Amino acid sequence: MTGAESLLRTLAANGIDICFMNPGTSEMHFVAALDRVPEVRGVLCLFEGVCSGAADGYGRMRGAPAATLLHLGPGLANALANLHNARKAHTPVVNIVGEHSTTHLRYDAPLSADIEAFARPVSAYVRVAADASDIAAAAAETICAAVQPPGQIATLIVPADLSWSLAAGCGPAIPKPAPAPPALEKIREATQLIRDPHTAILLGGSATNERALAAAGRISAHTGVRIFADRNAPRTASGRGRFHPVTIPYFPEAALPLLADVRHLIVVETQPPVSFFGYPNTPSYLLPEDSLVFVLAERGEDGTAALEALSDECGAARATIPEPPAGAAPTFDPGPLTAQSIGAIVAAQLPESAIISDEMVSASLAVNQYLVHAAPHDRLPVTGGSIGQGLPVALGAACACPDRKVVALEADGSGMYTLQALWTMARENLDVVTVIFANRRYHILEIEIRRTGATDAGQAAKDVIDISRPALDWVQLAAGMGVAATRAHTGADFEAQFRDAMKERGPRLIEAVI
Amino acid sequence: MTGAESLLRTLAANGIDICFMNPGTSEMHFVAALDRVPEVRGVLCLFEGVCSGAADGYGRMRGAPAATLLHLGPGLANALANLHNARKAHTPVVNIVGEHSTTHLRYDAPLSADIEAFARPVSAYVRVAADASDIAAAAAETICAAVQPPGQIATLIVPADLSWSLAAGCGPAIPKPAPAPPALEKIREATQLIRDPHTAILLGGSATNERALAAAGRISAHTGVRIFADRNAPRTASGRGRFHPVTIPYFPEAALPLLADVRHLIVVETQPPVSFFGYPNTPSYLLPEDSLVFVLAERGEDGTAALEALSDECGAARATIPEPPAGAAPTFDPGPLTAQSIGAIVAAQLPESAIISDEMVSASLAVNQYLVHAAPHDRLPVTGGSIGQGLPVALGAACACPDRKVVALEADGSGMYTLQALWTMARENLDVVTVIFANRRYHILEIEIRRTGATDAGQAAKDVIDISRPALDWVQLAAGMGVAATRAHTGADFEAQFRDAMKERGPRLIEAVI
Repeated sequence: MTGAESLLRTLAANGIDICFMNPGTSEMHFVAALDRVPEVRGVLCLFEGVCSGAADGYGRMRGAPAATLLHLGPGLANALANLHNARKAHTPVVNIVGEHSTTHLRYDAPLSADIEAFARPVSAYVRVAADASDIAAAAAETICAAVQPPGQIATLIVPADLSWSLAAGCGPAIPKPAPAPPALEKIREATQLIRDPHTAILLGGSATNERALAAAGRISAHTGVRIFADRNAPRTASGRGRFHPVTIPYFPEAALPLLADVRHLIVVETQPPVSFFGYPNTPSYLLPEDSLVFVLAERGEDGTAALEALSDECGAARATIPEPPAGAAPTFDPGPLTAQSIGAIVAAQLPESAIISDEMVSASLAVNQYLVHAAPHDRLPVTGGSIGQGLPVALGAACACPDRKVVALEADGSGMYTLQALWTMARENLDVVTVIFANRRYHILEIEIRRTGATDAGQAAKDVIDISRPALDWVQLAAGMGVAATRAHTGADFEAQFRDAMKERGPRLIEAVI
Repeated sequence: MTGAESLLRTLAANGIDICFMNPGTSEMHFVAALDRVPEVRGVLCLFEGVCSGAADGYGRMRGAPAATLLHLGPGLANALANLHNARKAHTPVVNIVGEHSTTHLRYDAPLSADIEAFARPVSAYVRVAADASDIAAAAAETICAAVQPPGQIATLIVPADLSWSLAAGCGPAIPKPAPAPPALEKIREATQLIRDPHTAILLGGSATNERALAAAGRISAHTGVRIFADRNAPRTASGRGRFHPVTIPYFPEAALPLLADVRHLIVVETQPPVSFFGYPNTPSYLLPEDSLVFVLAERGEDGTAALEALSDECGAARATIPEPPAGAAPTFDPGPLTAQSIGAIVAAQLPESAIISDEMVSASLAVNQYLVHAAPHDRLPVTGGSIGQGLPVALGAACACPDRKVVALEADGSGMYTLQALWTMARENLDVVTVIFANRRYHILEIEIRRTGATDAGQAAKDVIDISRPALDWVQLAAGMGVAATRAHTGADFEAQFRDAMKERGPRLIEAVI
């Protein structure tokens, strides 16, 4: 078999059944081998940032890696922003990048670039396959690196001639390591700490799944300890019947008073909270200077098991999870559409087990207050702050979970970064409903420009954060890529359109003008 | 003044009058300072790859740098692919990247990334501004690096707190260094070499401008020496009355026989020719093994002056530039549209001094044979092989030369990488006519998959290089971003639509279904 087939078979032997790809000449043998290894499904994306974002969404939902296939240095470069998000999410990704053939590398051909240098800042592991007989081992080691808890990006660079040369065979199936269980002493120490009313628990990493939240909810109900969660935890179980910890707010002014009396913070698969950006005259570190941090579970350890053990140890095993605060009533204004109305309507209509890709940016707070009352669902937020992941992550999640409805709640500014994802949704007939929050501005920047103290901004400044000239027509953008789309100006419009979309299967877009 | 204003004023003091930007929170003070420094025009792009490609197009037409403004590591990451192209073009670019405030950097905030590591592979110079009083000097040095012949990418990383702190003032105006003149001995040696009928000249770098081509044409007419040119020279003067060297073909099978009897190759601002990709059983180096390479002008030296001196030295000063080969007649088939018809129609209609951004990929050869007969124009090809530069380069060229018509000849697959450029064309009302070659496939890959020997490609392989499911509707995509668009299925359609577009001003798109 060729090196390309050896690589594909090694992916298949390790249960990697999908490859989000945008291949070029140097990857043609990998493409040709797809017919010989039907276990791996090739999904074409028209821009590499869609490939990497899709691999992130897939990996977050499956807890196992997808592969990418990217063309040389520039192809990898286009994927980097969403690999940054995947790195911050600790998503396992097997990131495969084609390289010029080894004999061609010495010439400074137009597409020559330092692929390793591009890969290193986002990759925990980078390997250049040495020769065709090395491909099977190199692929297996790359997969092994990707699945190390809590999950990593592992990059394999494959010169073209290795793909077309004869290889030794298929690489081994790698045993997937389990995250380390919690140490009993830590559980006991945390149990003591919780007795102090100035102790709080912060959940992050994978410890916002249904089981982890249930355990945290019981602990809170039984002991009164406050439970916080990272805004950027890669996947959070939400909706009715689930425990809803308090999410650390985006703006430090809101976060600081919440944490002002925390003397001990027990962290689970995360780090002490810091603000998203630094601002003049506002601290970045959000805990009081003298508060102590106790690590119940490191990233990559089993925080869920630790929370369950803590629940048992503090006698909370039979506690009842508290209801979320009643919050705003789930009713909507049938008149001019608002983010609040969208939240209420989505919360009312969302089917059980839906997946929400959340890149709402400035509308997030208004909508998410309603979603705690929706049917149980998973929410995938932006993990690394690099906008343009919402649509690709939705795409990848839909590939990972074809039986679950995916709803992408997407800001218009962010959506423009990787709108090409819509085409792959249409091509693969994925069950993704995209809601574009069309406020026609970079609203978050209108807020941030004041917050950073740039209060003297004039017309030229306002112009470069205003995306209303011309207004983006998302109905046409979606239709141009084969996704049926409608526009909603009122709550009544949106309610009818979203209700229809929830009843149907397949890709659909609603431009929600707010 | 703030650090941000100091930076902007230093740009203005050096004649940098435009900044292609996609700012975020860390760049808000730079944005706010735009009103105080009206000499610098902020042009908003909805994706960073549009910013970097536009800076490339601007720099190629002006021979002087534009600035970019990018948001943190991921913003830079999105710009890298077109910075790769700009690096290969040796375009001067002042690439400004915001960073977290220095006090925020120590925390692993979501958007933290290794910005320097992202920047180095594409930048000849990288500097992190140290404090606010350093900004003026840092900006001046960055500009100085960018304008070193033949032009470089220089990256300045600016922590947010430096932008909002008080700065010392404006940095100095940097004298722009002239490229080194040719050495007389080299001219004499080249004159001797030309007497050998097995000598040829290869033009690259900036030596495909009107003056350089005229000199090369005289030399060829007078001595019979063959003149070749790089496919990827960043800007080539073309059209009626100009000398048209033989472009080195993309495929090595076509290039090798052309160069088979070259004993001496005189290179001007370029390197000996190599194939674009390496293939099984085909050499990458396109010259005969035993041929000798003579460097008349290094990159960054004045190849144009060298060619003019060579023309004089070999007595060609009064020679007449030969006409291009008659080639195909500039007539078109009014029936089903072909690339050939587009070539004939564009050649007939193109106004004098137009600028063509050429990212036609597989249609390039068919069209360019006609363009030698068009009115005199400049052609900007893809320099680094990273597709997705055609529309941004057109945008940048239109900003650089508002009085010249810009025509982007763009393949549909390539156009999808950075289609967001259309929005900025509409916003700035730029005089760019985009022609999308809608063959609805990655046609070049259909060719390449056979050429790389992957002859056993089956249906799964064919599927992932087929972009016809669903068909992209470029009329809707363009309209969705505010650009008026039409579709042409026949030569007659295209002729009428392109004729209209040439008469009007402002952005327009024609989807040419071939």
